[in-house]
Amino acid sequence: MTGRIVGEVVKSKNLSFQEGEIVRGNLGWQEYGISTGEELVKVNPDIAPISTALGILGMPGLTAYFGLLDICQPKAEETVLVSGAAGAVGSIVGQLAKIEGCRAVGIAGTDEKISYLLDDLGFDAAFNYKKTENYRHKLKELVPEGTDVYFDNVGGEITDAVFPNLNLRARIAICGQISQYNLVEPEPGPRLFPYFIVKRIRMQGFLVFDFIDRYQEGLRQMTKWLREGKLKYRETIVNGFENTPTAFIDMLKGGNIGKQLVKVSGL
Amino acid sequence: MTGRIVGEVVKSKNLSFQEGEIVRGNLGWQEYGISTGEELVKVNPDIAPISTALGILGMPGLTAYFGLLDICQPKAEETVLVSGAAGAVGSIVGQLAKIEGCRAVGIAGTDEKISYLLDDLGFDAAFNYKKTENYRHKLKELVPEGTDVYFDNVGGEITDAVFPNLNLRARIAICGQISQYNLVEPEPGPRLFPYFIVKRIRMQGFLVFDFIDRYQEGLRQMTKWLREGKLKYRETIVNGFENTPTAFIDMLKGGNIGKQLVKVSGL
Repeated sequence: MTGRIVGEVVKSKNLSFQEGEIVRGNLGWQEYGISTGEELVKVNPDIAPISTALGILGMPGLTAYFGLLDICQPKAEETVLVSGAAGAVGSIVGQLAKIEGCRAVGIAGTDEKISYLLDDLGFDAAFNYKKTENYRHKLKELVPEGTDVYFDNVGGEITDAVFPNLNLRARIAICGQISQYNLVEPEPGPRLFPYFIVKRIRMQGFLVFDFIDRYQEGLRQMTKWLREGKLKYRETIVNGFENTPTAFIDMLKGGNIGKQLVKVSGL
Repeated sequence: MTGRIVGEVVKSKNLSFQEGEIVRGNLGWQEYGISTGEELVKVNPDIAPISTALGILGMPGLTAYFGLLDICQPKAEETVLVSGAAGAVGSIVGQLAKIEGCRAVGIAGTDEKISYLLDDLGFDAAFNYKKTENYRHKLKELVPEGTDVYFDNVGGEITDAVFPNLNLRARIAICGQISQYNLVEPEPGPRLFPYFIVKRIRMQGFLVFDFIDRYQEGLRQMTKWLREGKLKYRETIVNGFENTPTAFIDMLKGGNIGKQLVKVSGL
């Protein structure tokens, strides 16, 4: 994976781009990047702060949009559960669930994140898994009606505990498995496939790039909701290019609320 | 689960059923059953042997039909892999895959079953897992092009080995998990969910009853293919009602080829 950037064109020999314009692209971790322009997309700074081009109006926003609405097809009154709920994607998933008339429940790893979900984003319920002994019991308590849609960013033991709580015809989007990324040797877990028959579960893994033909649709809708005040966002911004690795590691450890960004210079 | 039967009406006070007619129903393990008639479906003995009402023209046939065609949506030229391939459902899945223009690969547990798949049913490849040390290597050898559709009847270690062989956008139908049914304590297995993201896998569990509104469509099509000689079937018939439990246990152990039946009397 290459780090994504939003920045200003400081010099251009490509007639499509003028100096001073703001662009988003896939240029990796560097202070200045060179591009043919092919992979750059212009960002309108009048719509929202340009940092949103990496968050709610960028890949994380589109990931939440297509992953929840397209893959999980939530219906009004259903319960949508999201893990990694305070992250760049998860925090949007819960808000989209509310827009669709669903009950939104979040799982996150600090009390500050839980307050953010409940008090700022309008989640109906949430719990701090790091302060929870038995995830399964907690889910039974917070989601007695059962889970219709599970948007998974983390995998591992949290996801194991969700399965007994799933309702008939539950839908699962596998967006991330952050609990598994750092393992040298994959750890075994309970076999969950028998649940798929009993509960007729449908599960699908995806990457936002699968929906590249529909980015414009997604961005239009997300921008509309953002302007109407139906979507909120927070960013975790670290200053200084030299702090990029630390910011990255901290994000993997769950240190961020909303999109983790590194501010390289003073735009 | 209640044992299904096909048999003759020996006495009827229901005007819809006449003595001598053949019916299929859900009457359980008994030699004679009483029914209001509500759950009985008439079977036409002129179409095929009445035993097929419990097999290729019954639930197993419909399970294969909807599970493969509807849930997995195989496309011509794709490779369809089925576990429990010589069973009542699996043996039909492979034949339906061939009808759809796919390559059919089967996994089963005796050499006799493998011959049946390859020589009688037209599977393109198959292997005896009980004589295979490394399922994963064997799949790589037999399915070098990768698996597009996996129809799972067994779960457990066989299914674990299928995941590395899956292609991008593979579809999985979870029809059975027979390897797990007899476990007192579910055994742990490797965590497979990260594969779902990398390979954009879609997986769905189902029961044939989910398609009850479309049984007529399925039976019509299966009957047509059977009459055209495009579908073959075999049955494993045990004689004598008293041997029902043994037949059931033997089926769970993989003793059957095709549908396991018990012949109660001389129809």
